[in-house]
Amino acid sequence: MITEHAVLQVRPGESAAFEAAFAEASPIIASMHGYQGHSLLQCIEDDHRYLLLVEWDTLEDHTKGFRGSTEYQEWKTLLHHFYDPFPEVDHYRALAISES
Amino acid sequence: MITEHAVLQVRPGESAAFEAAFAEASPIIASMHGYQGHSLLQCIEDDHRYLLLVEWDTLEDHTKGFRGSTEYQEWKTLLHHFYDPFPEVDHYRALAISES
Repeated sequence: MITEHAVLQVRPGESAAFEAAFAEASPIIASMHGYQGHSLLQCIEDDHRYLLLVEWDTLEDHTKGFRGSTEYQEWKTLLHHFYDPFPEVDHYRALAISES
Repeated sequence: MITEHAVLQVRPGESAAFEAAFAEASPIIASMHGYQGHSLLQCIEDDHRYLLLVEWDTLEDHTKGFRGSTEYQEWKTLLHHFYDPFPEVDHYRALAISES
Protein backbone atom coordinates (compact mmCIF):
# COMPACT_ATOMS: atom_id res chain seq x y z
CA MET A 1 0.00 0.00 0.00
CA ILE A 2 1.26 3.49 -0.84
CA THR A 3 0.03 6.95 0.08
CA GLU A 4 -0.34 9.73 -2.46
CA HIS A 5 0.31 13.10 -0.79
CA ALA A 6 -0.54 16.57 -2.05
CA VAL A 7 -0.91 19.97 -0.40
CA LEU A 8 -3.58 21.81 -2.36
CA GLN A 9 -3.52 25.61 -2.35
CA VAL A 10 -6.94 26.88 -3.42
CA ARG A 11 -7.47 30.30 -5.01
CA PRO A 12 -8.69 33.08 -2.69
CA GLY A 13 -12.42 33.00 -2.07
CA GLU A 14 -12.87 29.56 -3.65
CA SER A 15 -12.70 27.28 -0.62
CA ALA A 16 -16.41 26.56 -0.43
CA ALA A 17 -16.67 25.93 -4.17
CA PHE A 18 -13.62 23.65 -4.02
CA GLU A 19 -15.09 21.62 -1.18
CA ALA A 20 -18.34 21.18 -3.10
CA ALA A 21 -16.46 20.14 -6.24
CA PHE A 22 -14.31 17.75 -4.26
CA ALA A 23 -17.40 16.08 -2.84
CA GLU A 24 -18.68 15.70 -6.39
CA ALA A 25 -15.32 14.33 -7.59
CA SER A 26 -14.76 11.87 -4.74
CA PRO A 27 -16.77 9.02 -6.27
CA ILE A 28 -14.57 9.24 -9.37
CA ILE A 29 -11.35 8.43 -7.53
CA ALA A 30 -13.12 5.96 -5.23
CA SER A 31 -14.18 3.91 -8.27
CA MET A 32 -10.63 3.43 -9.57
CA HIS A 33 -8.69 0.17 -9.59
CA GLY A 34 -6.35 -0.04 -6.60
CA TYR A 35 -8.03 2.75 -4.62
CA GLN A 36 -8.11 1.98 -0.92
CA GLY A 37 -9.28 5.24 0.63
CA HIS A 38 -8.64 8.97 0.92
CA SER A 39 -8.72 11.84 3.37
CA LEU A 40 -9.22 15.53 2.67
CA LEU A 41 -8.12 17.84 5.49
CA GLN A 42 -8.31 21.62 5.81
CA CYS A 43 -5.37 23.62 7.16
CA ILE A 44 -5.92 25.42 10.45
CA GLU A 45 -3.36 28.14 9.65
CA ASP A 46 -4.69 28.80 6.11
CA ASP A 47 -8.26 27.84 5.26
CA HIS A 48 -7.41 27.83 1.54
CA ARG A 49 -4.86 25.05 2.02
CA TYR A 50 -5.89 21.39 2.00
CA LEU A 51 -4.07 18.13 2.51
CA LEU A 52 -5.10 15.25 0.28
CA LEU A 53 -3.97 11.74 1.16
CA VAL A 54 -5.01 8.85 -1.08
CA GLU A 55 -4.18 5.23 -0.38
CA TRP A 56 -3.53 2.99 -3.36
CA ASP A 57 -2.55 -0.65 -3.68
CA THR A 58 0.46 0.30 -5.83
CA LEU A 59 2.19 3.42 -7.16
CA GLU A 60 1.13 2.51 -10.68
CA ASP A 61 -2.54 2.38 -9.70
CA HIS A 62 -2.22 6.14 -9.25
CA THR A 63 0.41 7.22 -11.75
CA LYS A 64 -0.65 5.01 -14.64
CA GLY A 65 -4.11 3.64 -13.86
CA PHE A 66 -5.83 6.77 -12.57
CA ARG A 67 -3.84 9.40 -14.44
CA GLY A 68 -4.20 7.46 -17.68
CA SER A 69 -7.94 6.97 -17.32
CA THR A 70 -10.83 8.79 -18.95
CA GLU A 71 -12.18 9.34 -15.42
CA TYR A 72 -9.08 11.44 -14.67
CA GLN A 73 -10.15 13.96 -17.32
CA GLU A 74 -13.38 14.50 -15.41
CA TRP A 75 -11.47 14.79 -12.11
CA LYS A 76 -9.17 17.41 -13.66
CA THR A 77 -12.07 19.40 -15.06
CA LEU A 78 -13.80 19.47 -11.69
CA LEU A 79 -10.77 20.29 -9.53
CA HIS A 80 -7.60 21.51 -11.21
CA HIS A 81 -8.80 25.06 -11.89
CA PHE A 82 -9.00 25.69 -8.13
CA TYR A 83 -5.26 25.26 -7.51
CA ASP A 84 -2.69 28.03 -7.55
CA PRO A 85 0.09 27.04 -7.70
CA PHE A 86 -0.49 23.62 -9.15
CA PRO A 87 0.37 21.13 -6.41
CA GLU A 88 3.39 18.88 -6.22
CA VAL A 89 2.32 15.30 -5.68
CA ASP A 90 4.55 12.67 -4.14
CA HIS A 91 4.10 9.15 -2.79
CA TYR A 92 5.08 7.49 0.45
CA ARG A 93 5.43 4.10 2.09
CA ALA A 94 4.64 3.75 5.78
CA LEU A 95 7.64 3.00 7.99
CA ALA A 96 6.07 3.27 11.42
CA ILE A 97 2.55 3.76 12.66
CA SER A 98 1.81 4.13 16.36
CA GLU A 99 -1.32 4.84 18.33
CA SER A 100 -1.68 5.77 21.95
CA MET B 1 -8.72 15.86 16.76
CA ILE B 2 -6.13 17.65 14.63
CA THR B 3 -3.30 16.38 12.45
CA GLU B 4 0.19 17.87 12.59
CA HIS B 5 1.82 17.62 9.15
CA ALA B 6 5.48 17.99 8.23
CA VAL B 7 7.57 16.96 5.23
CA LEU B 8 11.03 16.21 6.58
CA GLN B 9 13.99 16.57 4.22
CA VAL B 10 16.92 14.62 5.69
CA ARG B 11 20.55 15.46 4.86
CA PRO B 12 22.23 13.31 2.19
CA GLY B 13 23.47 9.98 3.50
CA GLU B 14 21.67 10.30 6.84
CA SER B 15 18.44 8.41 6.15
CA ALA B 16 19.38 5.30 8.15
CA ALA B 17 20.64 7.35 11.09
CA PHE B 18 17.49 9.47 11.02
CA GLU B 19 15.25 6.41 11.05
CA ALA B 20 17.13 4.98 14.05
CA ALA B 21 16.92 8.30 15.88
CA PHE B 22 13.23 8.59 15.08
CA ALA B 23 12.60 5.15 16.56
CA GLU B 24 14.42 6.30 19.70
CA ALA B 25 12.46 9.56 19.80
CA SER B 26 9.02 8.08 19.21
CA PRO B 27 8.31 7.18 22.85
CA ILE B 28 8.92 10.83 23.75
CA ILE B 29 6.09 12.17 21.61
CA ALA B 30 3.88 9.17 22.40
CA SER B 31 4.07 10.03 26.10
CA MET B 32 2.76 13.58 25.70
CA HIS B 33 -0.64 14.85 26.81
CA GLY B 34 -3.12 14.87 23.94
CA TYR B 35 -1.09 12.55 21.69
CA GLN B 36 -3.32 10.16 19.75
CA GLY B 37 -0.92 8.54 17.29
CA HIS B 38 1.58 9.18 14.54
CA SER B 39 2.80 7.86 11.20
CA LEU B 40 6.23 8.18 9.63
CA LEU B 41 6.33 7.52 5.90
CA GLN B 42 9.25 7.48 3.45
CA CYS B 43 8.98 9.12 0.04
CA ILE B 44 9.15 6.83 -2.97
CA GLU B 45 10.56 9.55 -5.25
CA ASP B 46 13.24 10.71 -2.75
CA ASP B 47 14.37 8.36 0.01
CA HIS B 48 15.66 11.30 2.06
CA ARG B 49 12.17 12.79 2.31
CA TYR B 50 9.73 11.70 5.00
CA LEU B 51 6.17 12.56 5.86
CA LEU B 52 5.33 12.88 9.54
CA LEU B 53 1.69 12.95 10.61
CA VAL B 54 0.85 13.26 14.29
CA GLU B 55 -2.66 13.21 15.68
CA TRP B 56 -3.37 15.35 18.72
CA ASP B 57 -6.52 16.02 20.73
CA THR B 58 -6.10 19.79 20.20
CA LEU B 59 -3.78 22.21 18.38
CA GLU B 60 -2.47 23.46 21.73
CA ASP B 61 -1.45 19.95 22.80
CA HIS B 62 1.18 20.23 20.06
CA THR B 63 2.01 23.92 19.87
CA LYS B 64 2.02 24.67 23.60
CA GLY B 65 2.07 21.36 25.47
CA PHE B 66 4.68 19.47 23.47
CA ARG B 67 6.74 22.39 22.19
CA GLY B 68 6.80 23.93 25.67
CA SER B 69 7.85 20.73 27.40
CA THR B 70 11.23 19.58 28.66
CA GLU B 71 10.69 16.42 26.59
CA TYR B 72 10.69 18.56 23.43
CA GLN B 73 14.30 19.55 24.12
CA GLU B 74 15.24 15.87 23.97
CA TRP B 75 13.20 15.39 20.78
CA LYS B 76 14.96 18.37 19.18
CA THR B 77 18.40 17.09 20.17
CA LEU B 78 17.69 13.68 18.68
CA LEU B 79 16.09 14.82 15.42
CA HIS B 80 16.43 18.44 14.36
CA HIS B 81 20.05 18.19 13.17
CA PHE B 82 18.96 15.79 10.41
CA TYR B 83 16.75 18.32 8.62
CA ASP B 84 17.85 20.59 5.78
CA PRO B 85 15.96 22.79 5.26
CA PHE B 86 14.16 22.93 8.57
CA PRO B 87 10.61 21.75 7.89
CA GLU B 88 7.48 23.82 7.80
CA VAL B 89 4.87 22.37 10.11
CA ASP B 90 1.16 22.98 9.72
CA HIS B 91 -2.01 21.52 11.17
CA TYR B 92 -5.19 20.17 9.62
CA ARG B 93 -8.72 19.19 10.47
CA ALA B 94 -10.31 16.28 8.61
CA LEU B 95 -13.16 17.23 6.29
CA ALA B 96 -13.81 13.91 4.59
CA ILE B 97 -12.48 10.42 5.06
CA SER B 98 -13.52 7.60 2.74
CA GLU B 99 -12.50 4.00 2.41
CA SER B 100 -13.25 1.58 -0.36
